[in-house]
Amino acid sequence: MFELDDQDILPLSLEHNFWTWSAQGKVNPIPVKRAKGVYFWDVNDKRYLDFNSMVMCVNIGHGEERVIEAMVEQARELPFAGPGMATKPRALLGQALSEIVPAGLTRYLYTLGGADANENAIKLARGKTGKFKILTRYRSYHGATYGAIAATGDPRRAPWEPAVMPGVVHFLDPYRYRSTFHRHNPDISEEEFTQDYLNHLEEIILYERPETIAAIMMESVTGTNGIIIPPQGYMQGVRALCDRYGIVMIADEVMSGFGRTGKWFAVNHWDVTPDIMTMAKGLTSGYAPLGAVAMKPEIADAYRERTYEGGLTYNGHPISLAAAIATIRVMQEDKLVEKAAATGEAMADMLAELKERHPSVGEVRSIGLFGILELVRDRKTKEPMAPFNGGSPEMTAFRKYMLDHGVFLYTHWHTALIIPPLPITTEQLMEGFSVLDQALEITDQAAR
Amino acid sequence: MFELDDQDILPLSLEHNFWTWSAQGKVNPIPVKRAKGVYFWDVNDKRYLDFNSMVMCVNIGHGEERVIEAMVEQARELPFAGPGMATKPRALLGQALSEIVPAGLTRYLYTLGGADANENAIKLARGKTGKFKILTRYRSYHGATYGAIAATGDPRRAPWEPAVMPGVVHFLDPYRYRSTFHRHNPDISEEEFTQDYLNHLEEIILYERPETIAAIMMESVTGTNGIIIPPQGYMQGVRALCDRYGIVMIADEVMSGFGRTGKWFAVNHWDVTPDIMTMAKGLTSGYAPLGAVAMKPEIADAYRERTYEGGLTYNGHPISLAAAIATIRVMQEDKLVEKAAATGEAMADMLAELKERHPSVGEVRSIGLFGILELVRDRKTKEPMAPFNGGSPEMTAFRKYMLDHGVFLYTHWHTALIIPPLPITTEQLMEGFSVLDQALEITDQAAR
Repeated sequence: MFELDDQDILPLSLEHNFWTWSAQGKVNPIPVKRAKGVYFWDVNDKRYLDFNSMVMCVNIGHGEERVIEAMVEQARELPFAGPGMATKPRALLGQALSEIVPAGLTRYLYTLGGADANENAIKLARGKTGKFKILTRYRSYHGATYGAIAATGDPRRAPWEPAVMPGVVHFLDPYRYRSTFHRHNPDISEEEFTQDYLNHLEEIILYERPETIAAIMMESVTGTNGIIIPPQGYMQGVRALCDRYGIVMIADEVMSGFGRTGKWFAVNHWDVTPDIMTMAKGLTSGYAPLGAVAMKPEIADAYRERTYEGGLTYNGHPISLAAAIATIRVMQEDKLVEKAAATGEAMADMLAELKERHPSVGEVRSIGLFGILELVRDRKTKEPMAPFNGGSPEMTAFRKYMLDHGVFLYTHWHTALIIPPLPITTEQLMEGFSVLDQALEITDQAAR
Repeated sequence: MFELDDQDILPLSLEHNFWTWSAQGKVNPIPVKRAKGVYFWDVNDKRYLDFNSMVMCVNIGHGEERVIEAMVEQARELPFAGPGMATKPRALLGQALSEIVPAGLTRYLYTLGGADANENAIKLARGKTGKFKILTRYRSYHGATYGAIAATGDPRRAPWEPAVMPGVVHFLDPYRYRSTFHRHNPDISEEEFTQDYLNHLEEIILYERPETIAAIMMESVTGTNGIIIPPQGYMQGVRALCDRYGIVMIADEVMSGFGRTGKWFAVNHWDVTPDIMTMAKGLTSGYAPLGAVAMKPEIADAYRERTYEGGLTYNGHPISLAAAIATIRVMQEDKLVEKAAATGEAMADMLAELKERHPSVGEVRSIGLFGILELVRDRKTKEPMAPFNGGSPEMTAFRKYMLDHGVFLYTHWHTALIIPPLPITTEQLMEGFSVLDQALEITDQAAR
């Protein structure tokens, strides 16, 4: 329907587009032509193995016909209805979600993505409790709208401060590899380590005063800022603190949900049910924009008689809802959650092997198909290969090598994230890891 | 693909859905089954004439095959690519927009809807100027994320204050029918009236100090809060004030854009080019979620060397971009902008006639197919049929009559908005207006 020479895609995109998260004079976008399974191709037919699921979202893989055809059917049947209307996909997605989310999260507010899902979660918690403070962690990322970026702990909030949503207090993540206070006792037991960080959180709650705190919001597994996997007992401990102090527990599962960690949701690893859980990305695997806020009935009931003041034109867009229903069915039919758990174990071994072979690999972590390498100049001092919130020639060269050799992955400061589509096979993983193995020789040269 | 008995759509939607802008115990959603042209049907085959374009967005009308098939084709070719990638629809939408927006707005940042378009506009203005205050008007609505709702002047921001984005200052709209300061001289000339409100704005600029003000953001024609059409000279005057004081002018054309007012964009009526213009709704006519921020090159250039810190996973979703390209082409092929201008004149006559016939109609206003009736209890005192930010039995009965008789329209406090799809014929308009004519007898009974 739309004709354009392949070679015009890049120059014409550059002419008119303003690029997010970028300096406009330095962008170098890949002109993508098609995508299938764990691969995508550019206009010159160069193939990329997708080690980042595009933006950590294409969990079911590219070009999935069952989702595309569900969207096609919905587009032809009823492409749009207002957010206040009942539609077939609205009815069915509610049913589908109720089968997979932690038991007790029975009501769903649909949004356009993760940022507004998190903003609505905050609103719901504030409305439910009548309190206003939101506690989040320093290494969190919750989205780029003004409320979500305020909730974010990482430096992406900085350029917009102080004119962002007030009321957010940040606390420390249980980030064992770089835990400031455990420098002198790195061999502390996991139980003791967990207790230290729960004590820290409780201390902050008391300093801030519980009667001012509406919610604690956390990525169940910290995403871009380190794939930080909560130590045993941590999530259960946060749940207990929330119960003790009348605080709403919000789990941000935008990145960690939908099979990414080898369970439907990361909280399933610790049998914890938050009061509110936010989703996006894997929810539709990127085939359509959609986020969702799942909540316990008592959260929804706070708005039984009074009006919930919030909403967007495309909340509950029928085609997006249809994409989500189909995505969930694909995951169920193909047992992608179980598959990710199994392939995740193979990936953990591959990561461990890289660590063994390469002095520039300071630590590796993974849960399911959610993995990271921390690249360092010195394993003893843990000096990162790029400074906090910065880059380095080595990291640039490392990523360039990966791209040049057909592996698309995301690097963040001194880390490399491995977040492939869930249907990836062990062989395809090995294909990418063999390129990683070569690329790490670049960073090895900078490691003492 | 998805099977569900029609009669289950409503109960199953009610079971799991959390409804935005609603009290959960009081919702009464229409279960929509299909839609075509200016009509949609519920599961009982009841037909509604759509006098609100669903959510003021389905400008090209329902079930438009040319848009649906463009989306289908894109879904099958490349349903998703990351926001940092170049794609065919990204290239082509840039080209298409550059043909229709005011000359000089050459760069486009794509978002998911109007709220995040406005938030990004604010970020861009702050980044460009290094200043932080945003001036908006009291009767504005700019969206429901924490930044957009702070920019909003109407009471929808109230439940979330003060924990919304700081830095917004509200000023008064040139709302002639209810202009506080013109109570004693209602016959003032349009020129003098305009000058009063420009003087007011300049006064606020000086009180707030120009060196703190990043932007003035306005709906070019105020939407839900009154279809307030700027008097002659007003927009030009605001442009001049922005130029004089180094303030970025942001036009929010989310509702007023894409032919709604009988021009491509409302600013075209006054030959004003804002520095930044936001779009959504009509941009895809609701077929897919999409917003856009159009900007002058000097705005984009502020981020030539430094990184723009903002973006969302689904920015520039290929299917949404394809929907926008197809929507623009449909509007061009069918000359919908010109058509809306012509039908808009017929609608203005119909509105005037209603005012003549019904004592409860205090005033009617319209521009293109963007119309409103202000219902009052007394034409002399202008006492509204429902209080500010409230409802009344008469307004409830009025809307119920319209719905019962198959006309879907939006009432806001004491007003009724008439915002039909642009392809509506004069006959179809008359069909809706004849029901309006009957419904107004309900409010007439409450009018002195």
